[in-house]
Amino acid sequence: MSLPKLEVCLSPALLHLFDTKDKITVIIDVFRATSTMAAALDNGATKIIPVASVSECIAIGQRIENSVTAGERDGKVAEGLQYGNSPSEYPADFISGKTLVLTTTNGTRLLHMVKDAAEIITGSFPNLDAVSDFIREQQKDVILACASWKDRFNLEDALFAGAVAARVQEDFIINCDSTMACMSLNTDAAGNYFEYLKRGAHYKRLSGFGLESDMVYCTTANIHPVVPILKEGNLVVHR
Amino acid sequence: MSLPKLEVCLSPALLHLFDTKDKITVIIDVFRATSTMAAALDNGATKIIPVASVSECIAIGQRIENSVTAGERDGKVAEGLQYGNSPSEYPADFISGKTLVLTTTNGTRLLHMVKDAAEIITGSFPNLDAVSDFIREQQKDVILACASWKDRFNLEDALFAGAVAARVQEDFIINCDSTMACMSLNTDAAGNYFEYLKRGAHYKRLSGFGLESDMVYCTTANIHPVVPILKEGNLVVHR
Repeated sequence: MSLPKLEVCLSPALLHLFDTKDKITVIIDVFRATSTMAAALDNGATKIIPVASVSECIAIGQRIENSVTAGERDGKVAEGLQYGNSPSEYPADFISGKTLVLTTTNGTRLLHMVKDAAEIITGSFPNLDAVSDFIREQQKDVILACASWKDRFNLEDALFAGAVAARVQEDFIINCDSTMACMSLNTDAAGNYFEYLKRGAHYKRLSGFGLESDMVYCTTANIHPVVPILKEGNLVVHR
Repeated sequence: MSLPKLEVCLSPALLHLFDTKDKITVIIDVFRATSTMAAALDNGATKIIPVASVSECIAIGQRIENSVTAGERDGKVAEGLQYGNSPSEYPADFISGKTLVLTTTNGTRLLHMVKDAAEIITGSFPNLDAVSDFIREQQKDVILACASWKDRFNLEDALFAGAVAARVQEDFIINCDSTMACMSLNTDAAGNYFEYLKRGAHYKRLSGFGLESDMVYCTTANIHPVVPILKEGNLVVHR
C-alpha cells in the first residue's frame, strides 16, 4: 500500500489550487485562534462554535445555555462579547462544562472555506504532537492549511506546518514545495519557536497590544494534547 | 532618511496583496526563464522580447531581422519555434548580436502582470550579486516576485529571493514574513543551492526530462553578472 500524501497550503488565497475532498484538513491559526481552541477544549469546554461575525456570536450566545461569547477585533474584546481570543482566558475552573462561541477573523473564515474534507481538525503548538499523531494514525491524505493574515503568508502558521511535517515525514509522500519550505523554517527554528517568531510581522503587531505572554503560550508545545475536530459545525475533542 | 522596504511575493496568485507602484520589481523564475535571460544577455544578445504565446513568438520572430525564436512547452521546444528554454543553448558565439524572442509560461506571464513598477528586472542565481547590488544602489522599495509554477509556491524561486534578501538585509526595512521565510530557506541551503533544490517538485519534473545539467547551470551563482531590465517591452542589459 502506498503512503498517503501531505501538502501545505500557505494562504487561503491559494486554497483553490488544492483538492480538499476526502482529505484531512488541519486548520492552523497559531496567533491565536487554534491555540485558544486547544486550550479551551483541553480545559473542559463542552464544545466550541466557530462563527464568522460578532453579531452571529452574540445571537448564538443568547440561545445557548451556559455559553461564553468571545472574539477580538484589533486586539481588543469585540463590543458585545464577553471574552477575548487569548488562550490564557480559558482555564479549567472557568471554561469546564461550558460552550465557547468564538469569532476570529482568519481562522474561522478558513474553517468555513474548506469543503468536502474527510475531517477538519485544528492545530497549533499547544497540541503539536496530538495533531501529528492523529494524522499519522488516519492514513489519509492531509492538507495543512495556514489561516495566514488577511491572505498574506505568515511565519507562525508556516512554522507550525513545518513542525508537523518534520514529525510525520516518514509516514507520508511529500511532493510539495510549500511543505519543504516549512520544514526549512522548522530546521532554522531548531525548537525555539517563540524566539524564531520574534522576526515575524505578527510579533510586532501583537506585542504592540501587550500580548507577548499570549505568544509564549501559543508557541509552547504540547501543553494541551487534544485534537479539536469539527462535527456538525462544532469543534469537539476527538476521542 | 529611512531605508526603503523589501518584500517577497511568493506566487502570482498573491500579487494583488502588494502594491508594485513606483517600486523595483524583480521577476524570479529560476527554472529556467530568468536564468536563460541572464545567460543570453550576458553572452551578447541585443535584447530579449518576452512574449506570452507561441504564435506571438513566431509572428514577432518573422518581423525582426537576426532574431531567434525560443520557448518550450512540457520540457520540449514548442512546435514552430527554433530553440528551447535552456541557458546552455545561448553561448556567445551563437546569440551575440541577435534578438531573442522568448516565450515561457510562468515568468513571462508575471512580467506582464506587474504594472506601474519603477523598474522591472529579472533575477536568478547566475546574476545573484548583480541583482543584489542593483537594488541596493537604487534605494527604492523592492518587491521580489516569484513566478512560481502555475501559481503554486516553488522552492527555487523562494530560495533565490532568500539569497538576495540575505545579501541586502542591512540596506532595507524588512517587515515581511515571506521574506523571513525565504531567508530561512537560504540559511538551510547554506550556499548549496542545487543540493537543496533536489528536494523540490521541479527537480523531479525537470530531471524526468533529462534536464539535470540545466538545473546545475541555473543554480550556479554569478556566472552571468548582468541586470536584465525591461525597457519598452524588451529586456536589455542595464548599464
